[in-house]
Amino acid sequence: MEIQIGLDELLLFEKQKRTNLVNCLGGFKNPVLIGTSNNSGQLNLAIFNSLFHVGATPPLFGLLVRPDSVARHTLSNIRKTQFFTVNYIHESFYMQAHQTAARYDENTCEWDTVGLEKEYKPSVSVPFVKNSPIKLYAENVREIRIPENDTILLINKTLRVFIDESVLSEDGFIDIEKAGTISSVGLDAYYKNKKINRLHYAKPHLPPRILE
Amino acid sequence: MEIQIGLDELLLFEKQKRTNLVNCLGGFKNPVLIGTSNNSGQLNLAIFNSLFHVGATPPLFGLLVRPDSVARHTLSNIRKTQFFTVNYIHESFYMQAHQTAARYDENTCEWDTVGLEKEYKPSVSVPFVKNSPIKLYAENVREIRIPENDTILLINKTLRVFIDESVLSEDGFIDIEKAGTISSVGLDAYYKNKKINRLHYAKPHLPPRILE
Repeated sequence: MEIQIGLDELLLFEKQKRTNLVNCLGGFKNPVLIGTSNNSGQLNLAIFNSLFHVGATPPLFGLLVRPDSVARHTLSNIRKTQFFTVNYIHESFYMQAHQTAARYDENTCEWDTVGLEKEYKPSVSVPFVKNSPIKLYAENVREIRIPENDTILLINKTLRVFIDESVLSEDGFIDIEKAGTISSVGLDAYYKNKKINRLHYAKPHLPPRILE
Repeated sequence: MEIQIGLDELLLFEKQKRTNLVNCLGGFKNPVLIGTSNNSGQLNLAIFNSLFHVGATPPLFGLLVRPDSVARHTLSNIRKTQFFTVNYIHESFYMQAHQTAARYDENTCEWDTVGLEKEYKPSVSVPFVKNSPIKLYAENVREIRIPENDTILLINKTLRVFIDESVLSEDGFIDIEKAGTISSVGLDAYYKNKKINRLHYAKPHLPPRILE
């Protein structure tokens, strides 16, 4: 049976229940591991579930950060160095990825602590996560504060994409299911994904048509 | 074999290929149908794949809009009226949902044209999409322009949640797989989702543990 939950009622929920419910309303997300370094070379790796597409030309994506979250090391490092790595999460290491959300101290290198392997690329000082099927090297270009709750929106430019050629179609589509990356819901649920269909570009005078 | 695509190379790609690729890098998203009305009561329904969680207290979510996209009717209506409906997409109507992206003229009511049923709720002038398993009634509270590409970020407050009580757990988690909503990748691919696990809140001194 459909129930209605109003704003007043939601605000009376116990905090963790409200946090879970509202986070779940964000629906399916694409968690990634953000790799950063501070000025002394201390590395940090943290899971973010707030990646979103901002534009293709130039290639831009957003990341939303709560300043008081475990991501504070990431935010502080990005403010210092601007450059960072983005590592999509393969099903084989989603538990290690989730574990990076623990409040380790600043001197902890999460790669080592949770059991992920570092992978260095030419001219990139911060490592990637080995076996991550899609990796980006990115630069932060803007920071926007959202006054309603003091979260920070980072606008970032993609500088390099690393991807297996077998998952990249001729038309630019990435077969993310074949790549084996996972999605997430809320704060703690991880999902495998099965493509239903791609559909043709929608046109007013034509019905929806299956592309593949 | 892993290939590298640099920014310069990406900018030389044919436009549609670049658009596909960069949109796919946004990973799994949660498409929704946004229902709006203009001041004369002309209804509009459009698919958005840019919903994201902004905060739980107060419950806020973002929507990113390209001013030149088909979503321009949605943006113009939200600017006029502030209030709108958000309808999560059940697998049974993902093709109709995709079809709302076609560039219909302003006098087209997409519910009727693509074959979706309206559902009215008390004290809400804009209809919802019948059979949508999760529905929100929301108010736009802020508009932020992203200077890098002139996209508009709408920050919105959730006023009411409509959900089947069978998919809502005691701890606030929504079983979105049971609800039957879909995810999407890029501009045209739709996915079903299968939960791997929920994991316990990560703590530094404990290994990752399965919650359910």
